[in-house]
Amino acid sequence: MDYILGIDIGTTATKGILYDENAQVEGQASKSYPLIQDQNGKAVEDPEVIFSAVQDVIFKLSQNGSKNIKAISWSAQMHSLIGLDKNKQLLTNSITWADNRSQKVVQEAKNSNLADQVYSQTGMPPHAMAPIYKLMWLKNEHPQLFEQANYWIGIKEYVVYRLTNKLMTDTTMAAGTGLFNLKTQQWDSDMLEKAEIKKKQLPEVAAPTMIVGNVLPYYAQKLGLQTDTKVILGASDGYSSTIGVNVLNNENFAINVGTSAAIRVIAPYLIKDAYKRVFCYPVDHTHYLVGGPINNGGIVLQWAKNALLGSDATFEDYLTLAAVASVGSKGLLFYPYLGGERAPIWNSEASGSFVGLTRQHQKAELARAVIEGLILNMKMAAEGLLDNVGKPRCLKLTGGFTKSNFICQLIADIFNLPTVKVKQKQSGAFAAMFLARQALGKSETLNDIKDFAGDEKIYFPNEINALKYQKIFTLYKQIEHDLEKNYHALARLKNELSDSIQ
Amino acid sequence: MDYILGIDIGTTATKGILYDENAQVEGQASKSYPLIQDQNGKAVEDPEVIFSAVQDVIFKLSQNGSKNIKAISWSAQMHSLIGLDKNKQLLTNSITWADNRSQKVVQEAKNSNLADQVYSQTGMPPHAMAPIYKLMWLKNEHPQLFEQANYWIGIKEYVVYRLTNKLMTDTTMAAGTGLFNLKTQQWDSDMLEKAEIKKKQLPEVAAPTMIVGNVLPYYAQKLGLQTDTKVILGASDGYSSTIGVNVLNNENFAINVGTSAAIRVIAPYLIKDAYKRVFCYPVDHTHYLVGGPINNGGIVLQWAKNALLGSDATFEDYLTLAAVASVGSKGLLFYPYLGGERAPIWNSEASGSFVGLTRQHQKAELARAVIEGLILNMKMAAEGLLDNVGKPRCLKLTGGFTKSNFICQLIADIFNLPTVKVKQKQSGAFAAMFLARQALGKSETLNDIKDFAGDEKIYFPNEINALKYQKIFTLYKQIEHDLEKNYHALARLKNELSDSIQ
Repeated sequence: MDYILGIDIGTTATKGILYDENAQVEGQASKSYPLIQDQNGKAVEDPEVIFSAVQDVIFKLSQNGSKNIKAISWSAQMHSLIGLDKNKQLLTNSITWADNRSQKVVQEAKNSNLADQVYSQTGMPPHAMAPIYKLMWLKNEHPQLFEQANYWIGIKEYVVYRLTNKLMTDTTMAAGTGLFNLKTQQWDSDMLEKAEIKKKQLPEVAAPTMIVGNVLPYYAQKLGLQTDTKVILGASDGYSSTIGVNVLNNENFAINVGTSAAIRVIAPYLIKDAYKRVFCYPVDHTHYLVGGPINNGGIVLQWAKNALLGSDATFEDYLTLAAVASVGSKGLLFYPYLGGERAPIWNSEASGSFVGLTRQHQKAELARAVIEGLILNMKMAAEGLLDNVGKPRCLKLTGGFTKSNFICQLIADIFNLPTVKVKQKQSGAFAAMFLARQALGKSETLNDIKDFAGDEKIYFPNEINALKYQKIFTLYKQIEHDLEKNYHALARLKNELSDSIQ
Repeated sequence: MDYILGIDIGTTATKGILYDENAQVEGQASKSYPLIQDQNGKAVEDPEVIFSAVQDVIFKLSQNGSKNIKAISWSAQMHSLIGLDKNKQLLTNSITWADNRSQKVVQEAKNSNLADQVYSQTGMPPHAMAPIYKLMWLKNEHPQLFEQANYWIGIKEYVVYRLTNKLMTDTTMAAGTGLFNLKTQQWDSDMLEKAEIKKKQLPEVAAPTMIVGNVLPYYAQKLGLQTDTKVILGASDGYSSTIGVNVLNNENFAINVGTSAAIRVIAPYLIKDAYKRVFCYPVDHTHYLVGGPINNGGIVLQWAKNALLGSDATFEDYLTLAAVASVGSKGLLFYPYLGGERAPIWNSEASGSFVGLTRQHQKAELARAVIEGLILNMKMAAEGLLDNVGKPRCLKLTGGFTKSNFICQLIADIFNLPTVKVKQKQSGAFAAMFLARQALGKSETLNDIKDFAGDEKIYFPNEINALKYQKIFTLYKQIEHDLEKNYHALARLKNELSDSIQ
């Protein structure tokens, strides 16, 4: 039997899944690595450490020599930036999406018309995660390094390069750079000029189903692969976790809640949101990935569990406690912006709040309000989609949050939409595998993904609760608006306090 | 030796202290009673239960037959309202300061010019605690009861009446009704008209040092008193806990933090604050008690301990944890309005908030932010005083908060003022005793109270921390202003959610 390896290069770990030719899972492996955050705003990773993790995962899954692995394909974190010298040797770490150091550049871009232009030509909202702003920041802060760099790529491109010797990227990854034109679907010459780089410094762009080539003989032998194992170009995790839940058009919304979260849809036309609430990344000329990336997902639940119950408590404990409180947590509202926020408010200085506290609020209400706040914030992010592509038939849900029936039901109630927990838990790796199936000719069109991506359970909204959450949602947005004015001053205060501590 | 019994009739308990003629404590007793809150906004007490608690306390402290108790004197909760029929029998419970049911009447008074008039003529800020608004509410909601009532008094008047058969009140208690004219220091005929009552329905007013008379023989025998034990009129707890810490003028501010809190000063002239932030209650024609009563004191710490650590934890545990966090709790702000608020924001619909949360904030920061928030709110309340009487030399501190050196130091740092913990823990009962000393001719003037009211410890502000708290305070006020707009909508949401639960 033939096998395909789908690999998801995430921010904290690389996960690989070995699928047989019927898309059945044959094996799983993962390897985690550190996000280096040794100074304020910095969030980088060592590309060598990640490439080594990728090799670990491949080696573990190819161990059984009888496995005939036909292809390796990818789903990867977006927006990373790596500089290579003229010999394609590493000059920098991988500056991840979580790195905020180009914040000042973004602020300037907002004050000039640059941010508008970037959004309008590339679909990239004004945010420090975008490589275009990181390049400008590097040019200002590290001009010598900037000059030395002959090539600018991301982490998936680095891994693919190491395995094949080819510098290539796919449309869905290129789309997340702020340098790729929405309409022409080529590198945008205006943007290259702004970033002061040349087209030849960037990888060649192709479709996610592109076969890059055979894995290099050295790695084939080292990792226990066949000499004709193909490396497929693969896609961004944003795209793959959307098609991986069988969201191929604008009929349904895909929601993924892991450490962070995202809400996405595939639109048949390009979208420019008047308020820049959503990104719009081209896939091809009739498919655009539109959505909102949300910083504050499961990572906030982790925080709340530790802060309210202590690190010894389990998530089970936390959810059991939260379920004790009533719908709406007795009017307690929680804003989850513990790590700034991208969609829906696009404010890296945002911080979190509990608002509406009374003596009636005990630990159970605090715990439930956190979960409700996370979902209300996702609903705010969904409004940018709703306004542009209309109301979906249902939500397709993946990620850690799906482990809890309580949370799935809350999502259905708060969104007031049927919410489907899908079978595929690792939609990114699953979609990567499917892209390889297409590349190898084992599946004809993307629509065939539905044969493998099934639904596990549907949660219908409870009418009475949905009505309550509608009232809460209106007030939730209004109060966020009032809090928003103070995020900058709060961030400055925190800096002043922490400076004086050191 | 002669003895004097100082009795403090509080909201949750009556405490008595037996003093010898040198003001040394000879014995203490207390008896608690329930605040009946069986419906939204209601907070009443049974006058008979309180009178019975007062008798318990007297009986316990007079047990030793050798004690020659010369006088009993009072410090009592303000703003309570009790209706008596023509035979001076109880028609109502005691509607306490915590009862919010006349809120709607207050709102109407704010919309018309009545609230201005009440404040201007009586010094009573617009709040549901004021008997004038309670009378209007009763007239609307319970017209029959209102008609039946021949007398309107408060809880101290009821206790004194039961012990002496005389219906009398003192200036400092009358001042808290909203019916007592600031200038004439007589019942205000305009206000009586507004409340639709007659002067003869109210008790006669005299000075706190007035000897009402001997205790009735029945109670003298029952409670183990002498037949010539005098009942002194006494004063409001607001006044007595101010003079009880030797704050007799506007040189120092008195801060008391128990379940609730208050900041007070004695001004030599009457004060009308442009923003109605402070009450101004006459004592006599050269002394006015000016200050802000604050709902959210120790009761919020109790809540935070239970909500964050659980009801098994002690305050020691809580304070130890809070002390781990750094000055300013890493920029986390807490607004303590868990039970609405009187001074400084005078908004009974206010609710609490944590603002500025990041993942750096763990339980220790939450715990410290609560204490800092309580004190920052007191500082906001103090601004109403500062603007009218100038900066004090120091703060004189009493109440439960003084048990913690950590909290005392925080008060000094946040106020940026020397803060004196006074020796007298029960400043109310102590002042009541002193008023009796004056009545009996054992002390000549109020100034002699300094002979007994000493300082225990002085906390000087830490300059560096004070500077940080000044920055925090500016932002703290600004954000409160933005939150304030939403208190009404939040209160309405809570009502809607709780209605639908029932």
